[in-house]
Amino acid sequence: MSLARLGCGLAACLVALASMAAEPLSEAALAEARALRQRALADDTAYELIRSLTTEVGPRLAGSAGDARSVAWAVAQLEALGFANVRAEPVTVPRWIRGDARAEIVAPWPQALAVAALGGSVATPADGIEAEVVSVASLDDLKAQPRERIAGRIVFFTARMDRSRDGSGYSRVVPPRSSGAAEAATLGAVAMVMRPAGTSASRTPHTGAQRYSTGVPPIPAFALSNPDADLLQQQLASGQPVRLRVTSTSRWDGEAQSANVIGEIPGHNLKDEVILLGAHLDSWDLGTGAHDDATGVGIVTAAARLIAESTRRPKRTIRVVLFANEEFGLSGAEAYAARYHGAIEQHVLGLESDLGAFRPYGFTARVAPDKLPLVSTIQSVVEPLGIPYFGTEANGGADVGQLRPLGVPVMDVITDAAPYFDLHHTANDTFDKVDPELVRLNVAAFVAIAYLAAEADGGFGRLPVTSKPNP
Amino acid sequence: MSLARLGCGLAACLVALASMAAEPLSEAALAEARALRQRALADDTAYELIRSLTTEVGPRLAGSAGDARSVAWAVAQLEALGFANVRAEPVTVPRWIRGDARAEIVAPWPQALAVAALGGSVATPADGIEAEVVSVASLDDLKAQPRERIAGRIVFFTARMDRSRDGSGYSRVVPPRSSGAAEAATLGAVAMVMRPAGTSASRTPHTGAQRYSTGVPPIPAFALSNPDADLLQQQLASGQPVRLRVTSTSRWDGEAQSANVIGEIPGHNLKDEVILLGAHLDSWDLGTGAHDDATGVGIVTAAARLIAESTRRPKRTIRVVLFANEEFGLSGAEAYAARYHGAIEQHVLGLESDLGAFRPYGFTARVAPDKLPLVSTIQSVVEPLGIPYFGTEANGGADVGQLRPLGVPVMDVITDAAPYFDLHHTANDTFDKVDPELVRLNVAAFVAIAYLAAEADGGFGRLPVTSKPNP
Repeated sequence: MSLARLGCGLAACLVALASMAAEPLSEAALAEARALRQRALADDTAYELIRSLTTEVGPRLAGSAGDARSVAWAVAQLEALGFANVRAEPVTVPRWIRGDARAEIVAPWPQALAVAALGGSVATPADGIEAEVVSVASLDDLKAQPRERIAGRIVFFTARMDRSRDGSGYSRVVPPRSSGAAEAATLGAVAMVMRPAGTSASRTPHTGAQRYSTGVPPIPAFALSNPDADLLQQQLASGQPVRLRVTSTSRWDGEAQSANVIGEIPGHNLKDEVILLGAHLDSWDLGTGAHDDATGVGIVTAAARLIAESTRRPKRTIRVVLFANEEFGLSGAEAYAARYHGAIEQHVLGLESDLGAFRPYGFTARVAPDKLPLVSTIQSVVEPLGIPYFGTEANGGADVGQLRPLGVPVMDVITDAAPYFDLHHTANDTFDKVDPELVRLNVAAFVAIAYLAAEADGGFGRLPVTSKPNP
Repeated sequence: MSLARLGCGLAACLVALASMAAEPLSEAALAEARALRQRALADDTAYELIRSLTTEVGPRLAGSAGDARSVAWAVAQLEALGFANVRAEPVTVPRWIRGDARAEIVAPWPQALAVAALGGSVATPADGIEAEVVSVASLDDLKAQPRERIAGRIVFFTARMDRSRDGSGYSRVVPPRSSGAAEAATLGAVAMVMRPAGTSASRTPHTGAQRYSTGVPPIPAFALSNPDADLLQQQLASGQPVRLRVTSTSRWDGEAQSANVIGEIPGHNLKDEVILLGAHLDSWDLGTGAHDDATGVGIVTAAARLIAESTRRPKRTIRVVLFANEEFGLSGAEAYAARYHGAIEQHVLGLESDLGAFRPYGFTARVAPDKLPLVSTIQSVVEPLGIPYFGTEANGGADVGQLRPLGVPVMDVITDAAPYFDLHHTANDTFDKVDPELVRLNVAAFVAIAYLAAEADGGFGRLPVTSKPNP
């Protein structure tokens, strides 16, 4: 048709045409995304995957027999669900054996405490370590202590995690877990115990990764449960010296082979461009890794599977990556970044599910600034799920976020972290805590975002490149 | 004054006078009870006793070192609080040693389960017992099974406890705990595991008393946590044979000496008549026995102590009895009934606190029928605490209720059982779960009732005598 018949003057018509040409998502694509979103709300593929992984594999600490079983499980599941290019890409992971841990207050009032060794902790001598307890509030508080107050003692970090929707309390209490033992050893401590980096009122101790420092003797490191930390503080409050005995048989056992398990839904005309949906396959060993991160495995796999079933296949490839060893050093994410460094430009966008299948309450996108109108369009499709726009502070999660400094745009579906940190890294992270309705809600958000990202003309630009992957 | 000046005819005046004479509680007594009730709402004696017992003694399973410490603790506390006639009356209790328990699913999908031996369980052989699991819903379901389905297998009781304010779900799931192992052994089972008789979603297994039957081989008996029972049921739902290995080193170790610890607030003119306030001093060993029954110890002791501080001392004696070994056979209650059998008529009323310090929501009284107007008067003083009258179905609790068939009237302050059975007999029954405001509310109810019961002319009559104490 002629411009004249469109009923606009030349200049105005050119603007209108340019605007039409620049619209990166067609109405048909938006309609399909809405349809997928609704299909997700009636689909239990994710819930069934979560049930299967927690029931048929269970705990899968990097390097363990469960880890190996989880890799085989994931390959079989992705193949059974019709993914293309299913593969297990080898990842070398550390192997640490938990053994048994015990703690008991010896004086003034003897009582056993529920305790777990922190990941990577060395063992105690066979008959344990008994010493007086000295409590500190934080790493800074520890560093401010004179050496004579710490040397020969067991350091007890007392800071309690605040429970909140955004999980911000975690970052305030996790530093002692990571480096508290190393810092305490610097001042001559003989062992470290901490209040958990979690909000549970259950006597199920927390675990998590900790690291020693070069040149400092490694001392055994433990987390209590909150009620046990309370009891220890109550005894300390008496003003009498409190003596604790800790025992652990944990040890390192070299390295093991694990794998990132990958499957794809190939795009129909931009096959080489990838929308990466990530979760991690490994878990801590105390629970069955339900919300950390079987739910993520289920959510991203089910979202991709719904797209595979679409009669309107998107342009780009959806790549599901189930990362090895997120918990104990991000080995899988590092291996992925190293392996795909040459193809990093083909990674158009990354999303990750690794904060459990709790209620999503926000959507963030870190993309090139000129792509924010596209984000707004995508967000309009997740908004009906009760997920408003929360800004540009997306981080991509622990694994996918490793690609961000390489320039890959990321988006986050933000979920309620309050119940997550009631379970996180404890024995209570089990399938019974998973709500199928909330799983479906998360899948609905992921499928809508992933579909539109795979379809949008022009992608999301690039982020500033701030690092290179490890060789 | 003359009857004429009262302005009534002779017959009417006689009725009025009779009524006045029969009023068992004076306005001054009622006013004092209200004042004590209000004082209780600002008094933390009970909370402090609960803190002290859970912190300074902790677990106190009958016959254990903790049990002996708790007796010494209780004598010292009652003496320090100024009770009269403080004494520890010897009670012989059974001694059972928990040892270590483990359970693991061996097939089809190996996973460790959180488990605890039931009280009184025998050990397994050192390398455990491995057998196929057969699930049953109830004792009746078990009894309906053919022997060949049970023999050589591990019986798994699957019934889940309903969570409710009245705790009625407990009585429906506890029979397998008491006699499930014995019944399963009758049909040739080699071990018994059960879903917990509790509502916790935490992986903190339940424990509790179980009894073997004469003439039936004792088989090891365990309770799982609810999430672990779920996992076992998920694996069974696959239709594949599920094999379980259970290991326990628990054992009996003869008998030990414990004690009922008693202290009194003597009445001012009916000293020999007793209002008995009961709780139990022992606890299961997995937690610190906070709500079962340190709270009861604190509540009844603090209520009596408030009465001791009253400038208007009541007529009758308040006797606090902290019973030995409620949990494992009611040894203390039986010993008390035997010892005081000759003085049973002096027990005017019994009350017990043994359902935790949760919100009181009802008041029941089992007294002679002609004493119900007095109950109504007493109830009017607890009503402002939000505690309405709930009828005559009082049972007096596990310990004090032993006196009921001997004719002793009883009253119950009924508290919310829903949170109680989230903790009951698990490691999570700890001090952090105790709310000081609810403790004060319970003390307020107990002090008002106890004071008025100690003061009311004529008492509460007697209940029908339906049994005699054991010799």
